[in-house]
Amino acid sequence: MRASVLHDKETVTVDDVPVVPLDPDQVRVRIEAVGVCGSDVHYFHEMRIGDFVVEEPMILGHESAGTIIEVGSAVPADRVGERVSIEPQRACRVCEQCKAGRYNLCPLMEFYATPPIDGAFAESAVIQADYAHPIPDGMSIEAAALCEPLSVGIWANQKAGTKPGSRVLIAGAGPIGVVAAQVARAFGASEVIVSDILELRREQVLKLGATRVIDPAAESVEGLEVDAFIDASGAAPAVRSGILAVKPAGRVVLVGMGKPDLELPVARIQNYELLVTGVFRYANTWPLAIELASTGRVDLDALVSGRFGLDRVEEALTTATDAATLKNIVTPNA
Amino acid sequence: MRASVLHDKETVTVDDVPVVPLDPDQVRVRIEAVGVCGSDVHYFHEMRIGDFVVEEPMILGHESAGTIIEVGSAVPADRVGERVSIEPQRACRVCEQCKAGRYNLCPLMEFYATPPIDGAFAESAVIQADYAHPIPDGMSIEAAALCEPLSVGIWANQKAGTKPGSRVLIAGAGPIGVVAAQVARAFGASEVIVSDILELRREQVLKLGATRVIDPAAESVEGLEVDAFIDASGAAPAVRSGILAVKPAGRVVLVGMGKPDLELPVARIQNYELLVTGVFRYANTWPLAIELASTGRVDLDALVSGRFGLDRVEEALTTATDAATLKNIVTPNA
Amino acid sequence: MRASVLHDKETVTVDDVPVVPLDPDQVRVRIEAVGVCGSDVHYFHEMRIGDFVVEEPMILGHESAGTIIEVGSAVPADRVGERVSIEPQRACRVCEQCKAGRYNLCPLMEFYATPPIDGAFAESAVIQADYAHPIPDGMSIEAAALCEPLSVGIWANQKAGTKPGSRVLIAGAGPIGVVAAQVARAFGASEVIVSDILELRREQVLKLGATRVIDPAAESVEGLEVDAFIDASGAAPAVRSGILAVKPAGRVVLVGMGKPDLELPVARIQNYELLVTGVFRYANTWPLAIELASTGRVDLDALVSGRFGLDRVEEALTTATDAATLKNIVTPNA
Amino acid sequence: MRASVLHDKETVTVDDVPVVPLDPDQVRVRIEAVGVCGSDVHYFHEMRIGDFVVEEPMILGHESAGTIIEVGSAVPADRVGERVSIEPQRACRVCEQCKAGRYNLCPLMEFYATPPIDGAFAESAVIQADYAHPIPDGMSIEAAALCEPLSVGIWANQKAGTKPGSRVLIAGAGPIGVVAAQVARAFGASEVIVSDILELRREQVLKLGATRVIDPAAESVEGLEVDAFIDASGAAPAVRSGILAVKPAGRVVLVGMGKPDLELPVARIQNYELLVTGVFRYANTWPLAIELASTGRVDLDALVSGRFGLDRVEEALTTATDAATLKNIVTPNA
Repeated sequence: MRASVLHDKETVTVDDVPVVPLDPDQVRVRIEAVGVCGSDVHYFHEMRIGDFVVEEPMILGHESAGTIIEVGSAVPADRVGERVSIEPQRACRVCEQCKAGRYNLCPLMEFYATPPIDGAFAESAVIQADYAHPIPDGMSIEAAALCEPLSVGIWANQKAGTKPGSRVLIAGAGPIGVVAAQVARAFGASEVIVSDILELRREQVLKLGATRVIDPAAESVEGLEVDAFIDASGAAPAVRSGILAVKPAGRVVLVGMGKPDLELPVARIQNYELLVTGVFRYANTWPLAIELASTGRVDLDALVSGRFGLDRVEEALTTATDAATLKNIVTPNA
Repeated sequence: MRASVLHDKETVTVDDVPVVPLDPDQVRVRIEAVGVCGSDVHYFHEMRIGDFVVEEPMILGHESAGTIIEVGSAVPADRVGERVSIEPQRACRVCEQCKAGRYNLCPLMEFYATPPIDGAFAESAVIQADYAHPIPDGMSIEAAALCEPLSVGIWANQKAGTKPGSRVLIAGAGPIGVVAAQVARAFGASEVIVSDILELRREQVLKLGATRVIDPAAESVEGLEVDAFIDASGAAPAVRSGILAVKPAGRVVLVGMGKPDLELPVARIQNYELLVTGVFRYANTWPLAIELASTGRVDLDALVSGRFGLDRVEEALTTATDAATLKNIVTPNA
Repeated sequence: MRASVLHDKETVTVDDVPVVPLDPDQVRVRIEAVGVCGSDVHYFHEMRIGDFVVEEPMILGHESAGTIIEVGSAVPADRVGERVSIEPQRACRVCEQCKAGRYNLCPLMEFYATPPIDGAFAESAVIQADYAHPIPDGMSIEAAALCEPLSVGIWANQKAGTKPGSRVLIAGAGPIGVVAAQVARAFGASEVIVSDILELRREQVLKLGATRVIDPAAESVEGLEVDAFIDASGAAPAVRSGILAVKPAGRVVLVGMGKPDLELPVARIQNYELLVTGVFRYANTWPLAIELASTGRVDLDALVSGRFGLDRVEEALTTATDAATLKNIVTPNA
Repeated sequence: MRASVLHDKETVTVDDVPVVPLDPDQVRVRIEAVGVCGSDVHYFHEMRIGDFVVEEPMILGHESAGTIIEVGSAVPADRVGERVSIEPQRACRVCEQCKAGRYNLCPLMEFYATPPIDGAFAESAVIQADYAHPIPDGMSIEAAALCEPLSVGIWANQKAGTKPGSRVLIAGAGPIGVVAAQVARAFGASEVIVSDILELRREQVLKLGATRVIDPAAESVEGLEVDAFIDASGAAPAVRSGILAVKPAGRVVLVGMGKPDLELPVARIQNYELLVTGVFRYANTWPLAIELASTGRVDLDALVSGRFGLDRVEEALTTATDAATLKNIVTPNA
């Protein structure tokens, strides 16, 4: 099959790659849409994220959806033809974390487009049958692909404790900030305040979940006394001021990845007994993601900025971080 | 009555101070033992802690116990003579935090020995009747006083989720580290590892709750993969390495007060989905504190290093931070 | 002032009653709307509910709202004129339950229209200032009164764990069933299935929150495998079949009051590890109730079936249980 | 291999049965001790429990331990020789319940000695490698076998919320009541009150965890106002009176299996907002079970009443319900 393969820094080529055989519990999915994520862009430029280093040629892309075209021996044959959203992870299912329901923290996790595991910028991809989530008829395949970033937004809001009546502050109006804002609204938040330094992004998010936007260069968020702060920026000043915006017993969820170490206002965390945590992917979010997206409570189609064939993956990657881009889609079979 | 009054930096004198009248729901307690806390020492030297500034002469001491000698008009008269441990806080009882059961976060809190509220280095002190907790006969009045730091240890372990089988790391073997270690054992922790740079303190804590001690200068705690880390040191390197000692989905509780801002390993908090929080005093801990102390599951009497009359408060304060001192006791009526 | 007083079974008269003086922390509210609750009807007919017996003449009505006309000495004078929804309870604020944030379980609770405490079928009523919750301008005073039953619906859904994507079964489409259904939708439930034996009520609730209705005489709910079941009927067969409709690890919340003892399918509760609980009034629900009602996420005005002056309280009570009646409103000052 | 096979009501014979091949993730354990459970006795007499019917000859016994004698192809070879406690369940690992960490509720569960799955009254038994939990050197193989009923006691106390300071009532001083009492103490309960109609059992449990015993024929438990009630009797009057012994916001955990339907005091559950639930086996309890048993915080060896070879299984079953018997042990390889 054809796939877009990352060989070296800023070097992707469309190659013929072998089609691997299926395990009994796996399915093969014809990939019809793949969102471009910031982590794809990062690997493209740097060949690494933190301790994860690309040492062999690797296929990027982990926000994917398509149609099942082949099933393993233990999977019902009638799943062939099913339209599915792919949850791009394979946990061991036997470790302490897996058995406790936190499979995202499995130390043996294999995750799409995280070295050395291939992703979905390819004509097909393989996944365990239970991680190929069927989608309803009316749902677009692009929305199905974007259930992956939506899952990040769901997981972040679950950790933030967002509930009816909540007041939530989100820093960063990139794709994750936008889905987090939409999810916050879908979870019943009364106020969803989003800060971003770019006016264009503030305008976008006002149409996509935010009830109010703040330009942090012009206005401080400190003192907002929100119930929860979700950082989707990774920017040190945003994290710091966001923490100072939370009321006593409130929560802080760090989603954006910036520097590995940040100076945090620890005295405030103590005096307000704030709960600070981060997200590492997600667990058990897909059913809700599909529910929210297919019923229109979250609008994923509105995120799509452009579509790119396999031979234009480089363009999809390099334009992904433009301010006007929310989500580029790679279409390996278009 | 006589009281030890802080007038200026490092200046305490025994003064005659007026006896205030009781509100209907208050009691007056003849103070028989008061533990000296690090915050008392800090006010003594600096006349401030963070935003709290001593602007008027103030009585220090908030770890106190004694005997009820007078009751307000709404308090049963037969409480006179009761031996009580004082929970030294007065919350408003009507705000959102109070009604939600988090009265320690009440913005209108009045707390002993926090400006401008007087504490208990005095012949008597006044407290709301429900915060004067009766103690059983066999319990010493010093242990009753030390239910206050014990409450900090309970609150920290509750936030740490310490439970049977837990492995807990505690940084700092001062009084709070020691009570936190004892509480961790009482909560069923299988391993209680305590780090301290002072050998004397490591030896003490091995007799008082720790199952293992670590000299951080000689051995790293990173990689211990504990369920929870409680910092009772306030030291930046201890906080940092302690966080790196916690396993995925584990918890971090910051008790020690050091610099208001600290550089934390945020990427680890994210990748491990650690829960980081702090403690601000405590709520609803006294019944358990009295239970643990009076049944011997926590040994508070073993903490007492020395006893000082009202006229020796300065000595009690200046020796409180000696390595060999765990807890100095002021005895205003001795 | 004038008040409708219950003297004996099915005997209410409009009497002149004394205006009691205010405690420092109380306000007096000119009552403009009071919903008629099933418990009012029950006291009217039986002079008792369970162990609560009406032994002295008593004013009924506890779903009330109006305008502050007088404030106690400790309440800011500028609250006079404020439109408020009354949370009709006065907890002791000092017991274990109050301090833990569960003030609804306070053993010393004084509650409107629960003997011997007077309610709000009167020109004015007295309440602690913090239980007189201000409402925004656009909100009707009737909706403000109905924040009381709405709070029951909120509390039930909170205990049911209703969240985005939940499938919830509700038995009984009377006023509580209808508000519970609306709240379930507002909390993000994907499916809200309501069963009632009366066609009229099924039709009503389909317009007010339900996504599907079931006639239990024609169709069984067993096997629905819902996430939660809320009983708002008090009917033994509905409770039993509702429990059998819940999936493993699901929740059951018993709101309706029927017989004090019911035969429950205990083996199912065990094998499915269901969580079964009940609601006793509510705690800390008013801010969310006002938010949901004032933003239109719950439509309380649609519940109003009729309005009755003080002199027509008997009619309001006797027609309250008609199938077509959702909520009768008493207007003491109209 | 030799195994004790149940062929018909009250008919067990020692048969030669085939040794099945291992799946890659399985191990074969030489069985050295098996506790006799009430469910074994029930199948022996009735050939069924509820909907589970023995239709083919079946091997009983699910409280088992021994030594690994063979490993599947995916299991490290050096596990041969390991002494292990067997968690006798095989969940599907892919369903919603499994992935949420509640694998005991997996609808595809295969459980030892639950038709049609064979148990451990046999020279060897097969289990997934991760459910063969290694035990430390000092721990007896009988204690290892009894980690199964201990897990029931742990699971019950976890659901009961037992914690330091708790007051817990347990009905029934049979084996489950005894381990539940020991676990309650190990979890820090201050008071563990056990009721049983048999004096012999009350005497036993006083030595094994109870701080106080009650003869329900002589004394009522109602009004004890305990934090939690664990029923290990299955007896209707015990369940009813136990529920009435719990304080507001307390918990009720139904462990004992009696009639499938019971009349419960629903009005009390509502007015006190009690949380009522049941246990169905357990999940993720073995590490703690081994910790509690191997450190002596729970004494499992003290439960052993008698030992029986494979050829005496009938005797082990028929004497298992004697009042004096706490736990009979079958020793298939003795």
